[in-house]
Amino acid sequence: MKIYRKELEKLKVYKPGKPIEEVKRELGLKEVYKLASNEIPFSPLYLRDALTRELKNVSRYPESNCFYLRKVLAKKLKVCGEQIVFGNGSDEVITLALRAFIERGEEVIVSYPTFLIYEIQARIEGAKIRRVPLKDFRYDLDAIARKVTRKTKIIFIANPDNPTGTYLAHKEVEGFLRKIPKRVLVYFDEAYFEFAPNDFPRTAALLKKRGNIIFTRTFSKAYGLAGLRIGYGVASLEVAGILNKVREPFNINRFAQCAALNALQNKNFLKKIISYTQNEKRYLYRQLQVLDISFIKSATNFILVNFKKDTRSLYEYLLGQGIIVRELRSWGLKDFFRVTVGTHKENVKFIQKLAYYLKNS
Amino acid sequence: MKIYRKELEKLKVYKPGKPIEEVKRELGLKEVYKLASNEIPFSPLYLRDALTRELKNVSRYPESNCFYLRKVLAKKLKVCGEQIVFGNGSDEVITLALRAFIERGEEVIVSYPTFLIYEIQARIEGAKIRRVPLKDFRYDLDAIARKVTRKTKIIFIANPDNPTGTYLAHKEVEGFLRKIPKRVLVYFDEAYFEFAPNDFPRTAALLKKRGNIIFTRTFSKAYGLAGLRIGYGVASLEVAGILNKVREPFNINRFAQCAALNALQNKNFLKKIISYTQNEKRYLYRQLQVLDISFIKSATNFILVNFKKDTRSLYEYLLGQGIIVRELRSWGLKDFFRVTVGTHKENVKFIQKLAYYLKNS
Repeated sequence: MKIYRKELEKLKVYKPGKPIEEVKRELGLKEVYKLASNEIPFSPLYLRDALTRELKNVSRYPESNCFYLRKVLAKKLKVCGEQIVFGNGSDEVITLALRAFIERGEEVIVSYPTFLIYEIQARIEGAKIRRVPLKDFRYDLDAIARKVTRKTKIIFIANPDNPTGTYLAHKEVEGFLRKIPKRVLVYFDEAYFEFAPNDFPRTAALLKKRGNIIFTRTFSKAYGLAGLRIGYGVASLEVAGILNKVREPFNINRFAQCAALNALQNKNFLKKIISYTQNEKRYLYRQLQVLDISFIKSATNFILVNFKKDTRSLYEYLLGQGIIVRELRSWGLKDFFRVTVGTHKENVKFIQKLAYYLKNS
Repeated sequence: MKIYRKELEKLKVYKPGKPIEEVKRELGLKEVYKLASNEIPFSPLYLRDALTRELKNVSRYPESNCFYLRKVLAKKLKVCGEQIVFGNGSDEVITLALRAFIERGEEVIVSYPTFLIYEIQARIEGAKIRRVPLKDFRYDLDAIARKVTRKTKIIFIANPDNPTGTYLAHKEVEGFLRKIPKRVLVYFDEAYFEFAPNDFPRTAALLKKRGNIIFTRTFSKAYGLAGLRIGYGVASLEVAGILNKVREPFNINRFAQCAALNALQNKNFLKKIISYTQNEKRYLYRQLQVLDISFIKSATNFILVNFKKDTRSLYEYLLGQGIIVRELRSWGLKDFFRVTVGTHKENVKFIQKLAYYLKNS
């Protein structure tokens, strides 16, 4: 007897990029380069002492409200502490927003293709999904604004976008927001914010003018804390207050709080990561051009490659060579793949193997 | 303009026990004993090397399916790996179950007073709450069975219960389950399982006979990993499959997976904790008897004390002395408090201060 909700029957599950451990296990490989999940290739080892000290508190629940971290982050973002809602990864904030705002049957606007979690979690909440196709691999803000109906509740905007790597600039977003009624929540997922260029939206400033915005950022990408799970959303006092009501107590573990606090204070690591990533991204651009392979210019630490034919056999070949890139079949992009900027050594090997494949296939 | 769901308007928020850091901060105290949140008073320091090794992977997302941990745990529990759903603390499994099973307006049966999260999260999902009072500080299984209607979807049973510390034995639960229709999910929250006596329900065996059961356990209590956030539920393949669909990928951080795996393999720490706790609980029982204070015998690592008058002033006094116990006002038990078994030193100080208060108030 089926006792679960009918929405869940046909629900597709998010398929994450293959973990390094799994590929090693399955293929019996010793060295595996993972260029699949937009992680930075360096772990913040400077955290060692702080985390070792935190171990003595591990039998105790974490601070439910992230007291110290909230204080430091609020100051940095120039917002009020109560405007912040922390999530077990910024993904959790997506779920919190949907749970707090969606009545069954209300509409959520997502672009397509984009980050898949918006749609999966919105379906779980019983929302009707309205998809707006990308235009030239960018979010089509005019089409999104036209798609708003009286039933629209949330518009999700990944900025910079994943998997395209393109971004919307401040002026575009500002103009767009003027067209959106205040009863609609505009959700900016800024997971790759730290990699983005100067004309990127100043979302905190836009939020001051309009209450119907939430933006989320994460410690998983540029800060190198994907393994610890911590991200956050910033919204009006009212919206953040509601999200914090829905949030479970203790959702942010102790090590994540400790690491994020230290990460905010260590500007050096972040700076190095950003500059390393930009240099290596340029290296990859150049090499792809040499191989005459199309790609989309990216405001992030990954590149969407337009392979112009089915990538399945390339993907399998690279996997066998210990290189994991991201297939985009689930996004409907079977002729594309996504590659994360790795270490120089990883990027060189990726290009070598790609060149070898092109020559011999 | 209110754009959030109306269920959330009057929602009460779970108020966690005060963290040690907060009390130190607020009262300017250097030494604070926290006997408020049913944590064990020793951190599993044997994890140090394993966690230090894991730091080098921290920029990488965790295994979304907890591959290694699932394997070891399934073997230990003698269930199939796919029957397990891991949560960011076992609390998260409560939310997953509600999101997966509750259509707005369906009914959830909870006892009262009991662990508050069931009711809070069920309200968020738009469920109708049916409360069944405890009987002599125990779950009243007959009354619960009678409360089932055609709209009932989930029955929550904390076993052992929190905050009473009482438990239901195997035979009671077995008899109860026979009365419950298979379209109702019976949710056993066994967070304190490791402390419970021999006639505790063999829930995994009961699950083999009936598919409409889920039981959850946690690494937060006896294993001493509350700060890391990891718990799990075990259910039929069908139910677990659905919960894993609703679960966000990467909900269990790397350190939690690594620590839980090591914890399952270190039987010594667990054994010591259980025996220490039993000894100290007996010490507290004896001392409370000497002070002529009533309490409920507990199958857990905490004791519900019946103070027989409002505990507010006692609570404030103990707090000023650097001892945090748990007020139970939010449970409607203003004449009771809950005290966690601490270290011997902590327990002695608690008894001393309690005795002093009684003499001088």
